[in-house]
Amino acid sequence: MTEDASLARLSLNTATTKRWTLQEAVNGAVRAGLPAVGLWRDRVQEAGIDKAARIVADAGLRVSSLCRGGFLTAADDTAARAALDDNRRAVVEAATLGTRELIMVVGGLPAATTPGGPASAYPAPGGPDAARDLVAARERVVERIGDLAPFAAGHGVRLVLEPLHPMFAADRAVISTLGQALDIADPFPAEAVGVVVDTYHVWWDPDLRRQIARAGAAGRIASYQVGDFVLPLAADALLSRGHVGDGYVDFATITRWVAEAGYTGDVEVEIFRQEIWDVPGDETVARVAARYREHVLPYL
Amino acid sequence: MTEDASLARLSLNTATTKRWTLQEAVNGAVRAGLPAVGLWRDRVQEAGIDKAARIVADAGLRVSSLCRGGFLTAADDTAARAALDDNRRAVVEAATLGTRELIMVVGGLPAATTPGGPASAYPAPGGPDAARDLVAARERVVERIGDLAPFAAGHGVRLVLEPLHPMFAADRAVISTLGQALDIADPFPAEAVGVVVDTYHVWWDPDLRRQIARAGAAGRIASYQVGDFVLPLAADALLSRGHVGDGYVDFATITRWVAEAGYTGDVEVEIFRQEIWDVPGDETVARVAARYREHVLPYL
Repeated sequence: MTEDASLARLSLNTATTKRWTLQEAVNGAVRAGLPAVGLWRDRVQEAGIDKAARIVADAGLRVSSLCRGGFLTAADDTAARAALDDNRRAVVEAATLGTRELIMVVGGLPAATTPGGPASAYPAPGGPDAARDLVAARERVVERIGDLAPFAAGHGVRLVLEPLHPMFAADRAVISTLGQALDIADPFPAEAVGVVVDTYHVWWDPDLRRQIARAGAAGRIASYQVGDFVLPLAADALLSRGHVGDGYVDFATITRWVAEAGYTGDVEVEIFRQEIWDVPGDETVARVAARYREHVLPYL
Repeated sequence: MTEDASLARLSLNTATTKRWTLQEAVNGAVRAGLPAVGLWRDRVQEAGIDKAARIVADAGLRVSSLCRGGFLTAADDTAARAALDDNRRAVVEAATLGTRELIMVVGGLPAATTPGGPASAYPAPGGPDAARDLVAARERVVERIGDLAPFAAGHGVRLVLEPLHPMFAADRAVISTLGQALDIADPFPAEAVGVVVDTYHVWWDPDLRRQIARAGAAGRIASYQVGDFVLPLAADALLSRGHVGDGYVDFATITRWVAEAGYTGDVEVEIFRQEIWDVPGDETVARVAARYREHVLPYL
């Protein structure tokens, strides 16, 4: 299929068509007339980084972002060093793939990643509770973003902080609001540290309009990702994202705010949901395009 | 059992021992040496309001709060009027029970309460999306709190706004942060509109320390409710609350912030969890008291 002008800013995140290899996802995006893909590192590493870069370039697609670096909250030095090493590898991968946007999911509380779970992580009664110390975990993120930012900038890559929905604050990301992400980004140049606006994670925020405007004014909106908030939550809450229009997000309003903030980049559709993964990829991409045209494009 | 000084501020919310009638919960609290109970309207109405008031008074217990008023977001006038009527009844019940604190869970999006769910509530393509308009739903809450506040104040009852965890923004409460609750409360006297700090709902908030201090300075902390955030989430996310110490909340830190803000009132233990409801009430109350002594009291 030739490129469709109405889809000129639509990017397929490869997580949405999880069963597809990188080559299949790239072919599927091309067939549907999409000009861009957002890549996950698992599919990239499976193909091999150089081959992955070639697959995307040969298809003439943009890479809107690479998902994901992060998981920077470890309290012990060994784990912290390993995380920083892995993030430097992710930076190099992003540069090799030709995207400047490396999405960062910064990690949760040590208590949520300790084998045996929260009970085993609980300290002696009355003792300090380092494993649940959210303030300290957030401070470690700030420090480690500071460690990584010069390396990333040196490779022409931006660290893109992703606020995750607060239901993931314990186990996936201690950055919970766009305002908090922007506070962390503030000391760095806009080319070094950005933010992503993902509707699933931020739609509920009473301060959202103001923070999107602030992100736009600072030149920090690195990506606009869309996915709907569907109830009831899936057993694995991460898989509760649905097609745009199937849930409770007001895409008209949020998209307008993003446009008013001056964002002119790609719109990535990123959905994790078992029922969607069970459908043939081409059907999913067709629905992604249709819902984008109906609920996002008119407000962009 | 006679009263235990270490439990002088501990209140049993009747939802924690859901299988007990009001009389049974009052008896259980007295047996365990607790001086207060937080009541739900279902158990109160079951007993009858006057009898309920007598049961609690005869036992010599304080009523730390009545749960709950709210559900004020309806977009149509008939439903809105019915909600206001029900809230006025709740105010009268609170006054009759001798508590000034009426907890308000303000309600979610019309799309989440429309029969048939979000799909049926979706408007024609390109049309306005009133059922998902979170900004408008929040404005209706502000307006209706304004309607109710003078009536409540006239009965010596305070409307206590409860920010709920953002995972409930679609279906239960469009108030999602303590800061937002305080913004709504600001125009009213502290005796008319307050806020509750419920650890389960607010623990993740990067702005929490500042907003607790603000609430304390304004004299608006009407209740401190404790319950832990446990993963994985239950199929009904509302039932994911666990005993203090079983999850990821840093009770030492948050309790210290509440104490520093000048709060000297009751600490209500409110837990919804099937496994806890399946345990005999006296065991639950004993655990509630033990966990309170271990994780909350030292920081109070």
